[in-house]
Amino acid sequence: MSVAHQDRAERLTEDEIFRAHRGGKLRTQVPITPLDARALSAISTPGVARVSQAIAEDGRLAADYTWAHRLVAVVSDGTAVLGLGDVGPAAALPVMEGKAALFKALGGLDSIPLVLDTRDVDEIVETLVRLRPSFGAINLEDVAAPRCFELERALDAALDCPVMHNDQHGTAIVVLAALRSSADLLGRPLSSMRVVVSGAGAAGSACAQMLVAAGAGEVVVLDSRGVIHRGRPELTSAKAQLADLTNPRGLRGGLADVLPGADVFIGVSSATVPEELIAAMAPGAVVFALSNPTPEIAPELAARYASVVATGRSDHPNQISNLLACPGIFRGALDAGATRITERMMLAAADAIVALAAEDLAPDRVVPNVLDPRVAPGVAAAVAAAAREPGAVREPLAVREPLAAAPSAPFAVSAPSAPSTVSAEERS
Amino acid sequence: MSVAHQDRAERLTEDEIFRAHRGGKLRTQVPITPLDARALSAISTPGVARVSQAIAEDGRLAADYTWAHRLVAVVSDGTAVLGLGDVGPAAALPVMEGKAALFKALGGLDSIPLVLDTRDVDEIVETLVRLRPSFGAINLEDVAAPRCFELERALDAALDCPVMHNDQHGTAIVVLAALRSSADLLGRPLSSMRVVVSGAGAAGSACAQMLVAAGAGEVVVLDSRGVIHRGRPELTSAKAQLADLTNPRGLRGGLADVLPGADVFIGVSSATVPEELIAAMAPGAVVFALSNPTPEIAPELAARYASVVATGRSDHPNQISNLLACPGIFRGALDAGATRITERMMLAAADAIVALAAEDLAPDRVVPNVLDPRVAPGVAAAVAAAAREPGAVREPLAVREPLAAAPSAPFAVSAPSAPSTVSAEERS
Repeated sequence: MSVAHQDRAERLTEDEIFRAHRGGKLRTQVPITPLDARALSAISTPGVARVSQAIAEDGRLAADYTWAHRLVAVVSDGTAVLGLGDVGPAAALPVMEGKAALFKALGGLDSIPLVLDTRDVDEIVETLVRLRPSFGAINLEDVAAPRCFELERALDAALDCPVMHNDQHGTAIVVLAALRSSADLLGRPLSSMRVVVSGAGAAGSACAQMLVAAGAGEVVVLDSRGVIHRGRPELTSAKAQLADLTNPRGLRGGLADVLPGADVFIGVSSATVPEELIAAMAPGAVVFALSNPTPEIAPELAARYASVVATGRSDHPNQISNLLACPGIFRGALDAGATRITERMMLAAADAIVALAAEDLAPDRVVPNVLDPRVAPGVAAAVAAAAREPGAVREPLAVREPLAAAPSAPFAVSAPSAPSTVSAEERS
Repeated sequence: MSVAHQDRAERLTEDEIFRAHRGGKLRTQVPITPLDARALSAISTPGVARVSQAIAEDGRLAADYTWAHRLVAVVSDGTAVLGLGDVGPAAALPVMEGKAALFKALGGLDSIPLVLDTRDVDEIVETLVRLRPSFGAINLEDVAAPRCFELERALDAALDCPVMHNDQHGTAIVVLAALRSSADLLGRPLSSMRVVVSGAGAAGSACAQMLVAAGAGEVVVLDSRGVIHRGRPELTSAKAQLADLTNPRGLRGGLADVLPGADVFIGVSSATVPEELIAAMAPGAVVFALSNPTPEIAPELAARYASVVATGRSDHPNQISNLLACPGIFRGALDAGATRITERMMLAAADAIVALAAEDLAPDRVVPNVLDPRVAPGVAAAVAAAAREPGAVREPLAVREPLAAAPSAPFAVSAPSAPSTVSAEERS
């Protein structure tokens, strides 16, 4: 890290980090005040029996009278935790707790971390199917590729609720948004850009697919063995799909063969990139070096050659974090009663992020700040609108009156967080 | 309900009940303020990677740096929900949410409701074993007897954390406490009392066992077929155990055969009791009519003959609710690092409730009010002390420094709730 950056954001000490995690980063909260004898009678016996009975008679009422339909399960088996790899479920829990805490703080979204002591796809699916009445959506995190692809597909097929692997699609949404903003800034259409994606794991595959879906000019993906093309032997099924989808000219070789002259570099592996290859990119290049904690190339170095540089780090400008997509996309999906997350909803999320960045666009502001309070409500509203189009709901939902605060309750019941506002309290 | 009681607590309206449950009764909360860029760096990347790595290297650190070891899973399959019976997991969720909300409000205890769409004991155990790294204890609720006995045993054997079926032991603890306070009030030793328990389900079995363990003079249990005794044909294994443990004189017949002359009636079934049988009990009788929502005998009627009358209802005095035992017993077990809940810990919980009632003992105050803020901390402290005696920990725990607030953090991190205090905020 450069001295300039050290000045701007003094390094966190070990002690400071551990203190921030002590006792965990999540609590429960009860939105009923005052909790007096009358409230107690309503929320426990005898009152609660009426509500249980009503749900037993009409299961759709669970959506209105429990938290499950506002609740996201943040699920991991701990097999691909940050850059640490396969550290297991207990060591993954601080990350999942952090996600749940930030879903709440940034998007007013309730979620619970569930870490699983199994890495068998069938067992994970079976476990979440059994728990299905407990939550309204599933956010997968830090599951290793290529198992994450199979797991996401299997969960989507087995469950009637939104399922999304954040490391894939959350990241891809924000990469697309950042690239579209960069293209706008540079006055060039996305369709004219040649994009090189270094890394074909969860994030790399999803980024490549989304960039193709959004109309990028050419997308070429590399894994540790080099450029992925149709003729390469022993491709896994996920990589064979990538080979079909990308690299229309059938390029071969390594980074040195495809990066010179390219317009965009997207790094989502931990492989470093030599300075001379970045220098050889086309004029006005875009470099997203997203590996954490060490970017593929130091951003200061990349900035000597590229017009836009972004990383995944919170202590640099242009932080490409899936937190820009993720509380908002679930918030929007749940608010709209969606039962799956469609590509259209993901593209709408990217649109919303682009629109927010456009208000203050600059080379070091191609995405909004992760802490910008406009992001989650903006993404949620766009996603909810897209969710109301065909494909997002698997079966007809009953028409329900909207959730609202009680007009004249003898004890106050907080209304569930509205999608369009994030209160100061929730952000604290 | 008598006119007097209607005056004291105006009946809840349907509308009022449903409004109290709208959107669910639980939220998540983030204890980190302010959530600025520096806090973000600490709780997500890059900071969280340090914590995950430390836990990967020493799994015991998860107890200090995640919420799991302070978290109770409130688990149900929805097969015996209140008096409603087998209404299924979705309809059970409002009850489990209510428990979780009250665990927090009354005891500062974090918990999450998990309702399971399976009623197979092996599948429930398997599911919770897979989720084990996500929580620190299991509170079973509203699982039908006799399966609840098998499930509790199987979970206790399969998991290295406290497991308790609240409908059994939570209820039994409070019944024991209320009966000991009644005995103190009446100036008679528990060992001189003849107790009749009507109901041999989860609550009835556990009450009988705990009263025997606490030295009650004679305990006789009835189910729908009458008095349980060793000579009765076709006893289930649970009832055969009860027959061995109780009814030393081998009484037979029905309520009319055993209640006349008895000192204590404990009703934990929905079978009504005729007034003339209550009238035939010994002078200075104790009547706990605990069925919900309709007690076995109207408390006003019972009070014509009995010296102490209690129910399970919040709108009558002497509410015998397992909420008096339950946040406190888990709070104490987790605070002490216990890996199981022993009979000694349960008896200590009852002691604590008796001690609190003793400060203001009267025929209509044999147990503290459920909303009394002294109860959960008092029970927790007593249970934690008992948990430090042999038997409560399955394997040696590492000596750890106590959890504490950061002395001079650049951003404040709330300390986990201390066992001995329940803040105004937590109770709101």
